[in-house]
Amino acid sequence: MNKDQNRMEKITSREENFSEWYLDIIREADLAENSPVRGSMIIKPYGYSLWENIQKILDGEFKKCGTQNAYFPLLIPKSFLEKEAEHVEGFAKECAVVTHHRLEEKDGKLVPAGELDEPLVIRPTSETIIYDAFSKWIHSYRDLPLIINQWCNVVRWEMRPRLFLRTTEFLWQEGHTAHATRKEADEKTLEMLEVYRQFVEDYLAVSLVKGKKTEPEKFPGAEYTATIEAMMQDGKALQSGTSHMLAQNFAKSFNVSFLDGNQEKQYVWQTSWGLSTRIIGALIMSHSDDKGLVLPPRIAPIQVVVIPIWSSDDEKKVVFAEVQKIKTELEAGGITFKTDEREGRPGPKYFEWERKGVPLRIEIGPKDVQKQSVVIVDRITGKKEFISNTEITSRVKESLEQIQKTLLENSRKFRLDNTREVSDYEEFKKIMSGKKGFIFTHLCLDKNCEEKIKEETNASTRCIPFDGGLNNAGKCIYCKQDAPNKVLFGKAY
Amino acid sequence: MNKDQNRMEKITSREENFSEWYLDIIREADLAENSPVRGSMIIKPYGYSLWENIQKILDGEFKKCGTQNAYFPLLIPKSFLEKEAEHVEGFAKECAVVTHHRLEEKDGKLVPAGELDEPLVIRPTSETIIYDAFSKWIHSYRDLPLIINQWCNVVRWEMRPRLFLRTTEFLWQEGHTAHATRKEADEKTLEMLEVYRQFVEDYLAVSLVKGKKTEPEKFPGAEYTATIEAMMQDGKALQSGTSHMLAQNFAKSFNVSFLDGNQEKQYVWQTSWGLSTRIIGALIMSHSDDKGLVLPPRIAPIQVVVIPIWSSDDEKKVVFAEVQKIKTELEAGGITFKTDEREGRPGPKYFEWERKGVPLRIEIGPKDVQKQSVVIVDRITGKKEFISNTEITSRVKESLEQIQKTLLENSRKFRLDNTREVSDYEEFKKIMSGKKGFIFTHLCLDKNCEEKIKEETNASTRCIPFDGGLNNAGKCIYCKQDAPNKVLFGKAY
Repeated sequence: MNKDQNRMEKITSREENFSEWYLDIIREADLAENSPVRGSMIIKPYGYSLWENIQKILDGEFKKCGTQNAYFPLLIPKSFLEKEAEHVEGFAKECAVVTHHRLEEKDGKLVPAGELDEPLVIRPTSETIIYDAFSKWIHSYRDLPLIINQWCNVVRWEMRPRLFLRTTEFLWQEGHTAHATRKEADEKTLEMLEVYRQFVEDYLAVSLVKGKKTEPEKFPGAEYTATIEAMMQDGKALQSGTSHMLAQNFAKSFNVSFLDGNQEKQYVWQTSWGLSTRIIGALIMSHSDDKGLVLPPRIAPIQVVVIPIWSSDDEKKVVFAEVQKIKTELEAGGITFKTDEREGRPGPKYFEWERKGVPLRIEIGPKDVQKQSVVIVDRITGKKEFISNTEITSRVKESLEQIQKTLLENSRKFRLDNTREVSDYEEFKKIMSGKKGFIFTHLCLDKNCEEKIKEETNASTRCIPFDGGLNNAGKCIYCKQDAPNKVLFGKAY
Repeated sequence: MNKDQNRMEKITSREENFSEWYLDIIREADLAENSPVRGSMIIKPYGYSLWENIQKILDGEFKKCGTQNAYFPLLIPKSFLEKEAEHVEGFAKECAVVTHHRLEEKDGKLVPAGELDEPLVIRPTSETIIYDAFSKWIHSYRDLPLIINQWCNVVRWEMRPRLFLRTTEFLWQEGHTAHATRKEADEKTLEMLEVYRQFVEDYLAVSLVKGKKTEPEKFPGAEYTATIEAMMQDGKALQSGTSHMLAQNFAKSFNVSFLDGNQEKQYVWQTSWGLSTRIIGALIMSHSDDKGLVLPPRIAPIQVVVIPIWSSDDEKKVVFAEVQKIKTELEAGGITFKTDEREGRPGPKYFEWERKGVPLRIEIGPKDVQKQSVVIVDRITGKKEFISNTEITSRVKESLEQIQKTLLENSRKFRLDNTREVSDYEEFKKIMSGKKGFIFTHLCLDKNCEEKIKEETNASTRCIPFDGGLNNAGKCIYCKQDAPNKVLFGKAY
């Protein structure tokens, strides 16, 4: 599945055109491609292995929090969607609708036939179908808490599709919980947000701001939405995961109730939380450079590529014998690696693995064998080091850890350097028309102000940061009236 | 997620009504339930954990065979389906068709809106969309073999749905490969069938017959289909996995070609292979008994349940201290277990875990602690044994292995006992109207004979067994003309 080197194309620089650069990275690293169905993508093996790693790690974390996986139907009756007013309002305009259950030949052409009595909608999210089940599963307080997750595909019709970031179909996990008290549901909402934050920062090395969405930006049907927001290298924001406190909104629409200790009927308190293949877009745009993809070692499908160098058969024999030893060592050290044993010059191989974002390269030629050393080259700095054969595993591990740490530090520094405190709206507009980034400023509760700012600058509220945003009173940047919170603004993907 | 014991219901006996029994087992073991969308099911956590185990094991096996996972779109253009004549013939009559991309309010009701130019079909299987991609990915012989798999959901409209066995939506994996030669594709077809056989026999303990499907029973678009066929406890057959030799049929429809070593254009040779959540139906119907589900230890989400018994607080303290030691031991032994520490009498707990098919139960009360022993009870024989505290892990492992072995032996014996060699069509009809099972007999190549037998007896050909069926000439049981093969018949799920 490696791209033929002859078919490699130029990568546009970030400076020149960030959007083109993004698509070039995806193409050259062989992560994904557009499918013939507009808005849908094909996730290619190398891209999918990133998603497999994400799934494995997150799934383990979910299970530590008492989560059980299950699977609910893809197709949802239209009437279910209609039960929660805000929810249907939010999703009806982007639903794929199934109206027929077969194709039939008519005048030599296949046409839809077997019309359904009630149209079905392909799930844009599964609150409705899952809570209908919850209403049958939950009877008593002993059935609570119920903590369910599913890994699945969802469809939201997308008019401006973009690989990973906005696709009509995407893969995600959606967690759904039911609790006996508001307090437990509040805690769960924040607990799962913290699971996301830890995962994204510790594994994907993408620095985040945690906060609460403003009213207009919350999930349709939620009481509030908590979010993690990242900043891409072009200064634009990317919402990376959300956790919703649904309170009793869906419980009341779907009659999810239980008998408490006093045998009295109570509605449950609910949360839902999701993270999708979109996060791969964040990963790409946070770290990659003009040479290609850059992957943090803890999520990279291949952490190390070993490239043997030889020019004669004799040399090949000597070098490959040494490579065999290195392989054994790396394997014992739990490092995931690939040996590029193909014929051909090393240059194009370096180039190819660089494009694919492999964090560390080991080069080994006949001279290195003689000196009982190898060369290691770091993907992010390009720095070469000669290291002794006896310390390969330890030095590789050190380097990988260093790269992981540096990537997160860089991401954090970039975000902080590009976050500005502004109280003058003219300055706000100037920043958003230029270098972008985040603006941290006061905003009142009048939805009109938020809307106007979005209209006039294209920047939307990303969140009210938990750290320094909530309950930090001042004057609204737009209307100058009282504002209870400080809010983070950014142009968003 | 354990069912409240008060809500437990009677399990119909197999003797009384096998179909009812099957549904009772699923309900009482809390594996799955029907969803409000006819034909779709909800896989509940305990049932889904079986699928997770299946995925984990099979995925590992696939990767050992050089398979890479990827993900292709759910929605397929109608025109793609039409490209391979047999294929569309096979699937058009059971396709969910997406015709609109939003819902709009009209007279206070939501109606489909945004009609699509070309209807999209929810994948019933993905040959068409995947081979369209292959045609872009494959250029030279160096790109071959290409061995891709995806884990996903598919939809085939089902008129007579039945949990796990026939559902409108089901989960599965579908492997798709492309090769330079017919020989390689032939070998791959059989290699993957053997992966399935090993998995199903070694882990699910379901005994199988491997063979080739007859022409009318093969996959639409394949040159031939290889299959593994199991026999359920009611004597009916269940197709448990299939591997298709597609030859160049799709390659020609989708122009999947490559330049060979002589720079000449060649079409690739292809295979596809799939195993679905249907296999959970086979698992249930192979081993379970009138007391509930029976699971082979190697696939059971919980291999051992530990049930502490106490009546006073003092006893509880003593017993739980010992339980703690047992937990540490089992964990160190790599045994998956659950401790049922709930309040309440042990009887209903035994009953509940028996219904859930946990292979082994450990009981421990104050007297056992005194004697430094525990009681282990085997789910399939119900046999009780007192074992010393010092040998818990070793004895548990032995017992689990014994259960695994016994289940496969029982399955094999049952299948052989219920497979009959018959050459008289009257006897054939008598068997199929009575005790069922498999009939092994000669069949000519005239599709009419096969069709007539199906019409008259409801029995279909399961396969031409590789072992003793292929190239075993004789006289057709129906028309008495020359028959090149001996074929296995059965009534099928």
